[in-house]
Amino acid sequence: MLDYTHVEDLSAADIARLRAVYEPLTASVRELIDATIRTEVDADAVAAAKAEIDSAAARLRAAQRDGSFGIQFGADGDPMPWGNAVIGVRNPCAPPLVIRKEPDGSVKSDFYLGAAFEGPPGHVHGGVSAKILDHILGDAASTPGVHRLTGTITVRYRRLTPLGRLRSEARVTHTDGFKTYAVGHIADSTGVTVDAEAVFIEPKWARD
Amino acid sequence: MLDYTHVEDLSAADIARLRAVYEPLTASVRELIDATIRTEVDADAVAAAKAEIDSAAARLRAAQRDGSFGIQFGADGDPMPWGNAVIGVRNPCAPPLVIRKEPDGSVKSDFYLGAAFEGPPGHVHGGVSAKILDHILGDAASTPGVHRLTGTITVRYRRLTPLGRLRSEARVTHTDGFKTYAVGHIADSTGVTVDAEAVFIEPKWARD
Repeated sequence: MLDYTHVEDLSAADIARLRAVYEPLTASVRELIDATIRTEVDADAVAAAKAEIDSAAARLRAAQRDGSFGIQFGADGDPMPWGNAVIGVRNPCAPPLVIRKEPDGSVKSDFYLGAAFEGPPGHVHGGVSAKILDHILGDAASTPGVHRLTGTITVRYRRLTPLGRLRSEARVTHTDGFKTYAVGHIADSTGVTVDAEAVFIEPKWARD
Repeated sequence: MLDYTHVEDLSAADIARLRAVYEPLTASVRELIDATIRTEVDADAVAAAKAEIDSAAARLRAAQRDGSFGIQFGADGDPMPWGNAVIGVRNPCAPPLVIRKEPDGSVKSDFYLGAAFEGPPGHVHGGVSAKILDHILGDAASTPGVHRLTGTITVRYRRLTPLGRLRSEARVTHTDGFKTYAVGHIADSTGVTVDAEAVFIEPKWARD
């Protein structure tokens, strides 16, 4: 069902080189996204900026892969989901989350959400919180080589989440055959704002 | 709790003029995001593109609002959530969804999700589906002047959602005091891929 087409034999040095090329580009586009939302310059300045943006996009499109990024693999088998909407280091719309695995198997991430993630004024869009929780609970539920897919997720909003520095955590509670259950939350500096529970399914093609 | 600070007395003509200035800019940044994810040009070409992007961002930051966009209001009281993460016409990370209200009170949206919304290869990130459903169910549950906030949402994934052209629909099922219940789904050309149910809460400050 899933087409992991972009499998290449990249060494650790290749991957480091690609990161060094593309991460600064992505960081610049993230800054541009924020500036695009917040700018109050006049129409002439907007037009001048737009011309530069169109020129940059044309340069980048001179050679590009067909379709979406997919997932590349390094020579060691590590996946490189660099286009991913939540963790992709080449996706300017990803915060991106950097997720740490703790010795007890739980996962944690500290991240910053700015103007691009707004719903209610000054606050994180509820859907953005759901997006992040779907990913981080899925990460807790996955093991090397087996990325489990969300079956059902329930997200409870305790109060509004302010834009700014946030933390998310998740852990597995139990497993039942090919189902893995996880819980997690998002918190600001004063405590939990949103929590979630979900069941993740091991894809049929990955069983046995 | 919510600070609707950017209230201005904009006429319909003012709003049309602002749209004409900023929508093409945002569209260009959306193209750039897609190009950034998919590009395979070499390091020199990436550096040249990055220099143009940094220049464009500096032009836009010459005058900018503090913090996030917030919500402006036109002279007729219509909200302009142009920075919104799902529907914002000035937010390059928003698809953006254009939501139609049907005569029966339900809401519908046809939209396109490309490389920036990927999770599993070639498919929509499950969290992105949750984000969209949170917004569109909330839109169904809201009435002019009262935007209800998500209390709890449950999202069920029936199968993977392919990137590309999609549709989402939502409707209110019932209300109970200050709680409004809604259901909805996302579908591709062959049927429903994800469905959701949620309860939305009328904010305390909006009651009576």
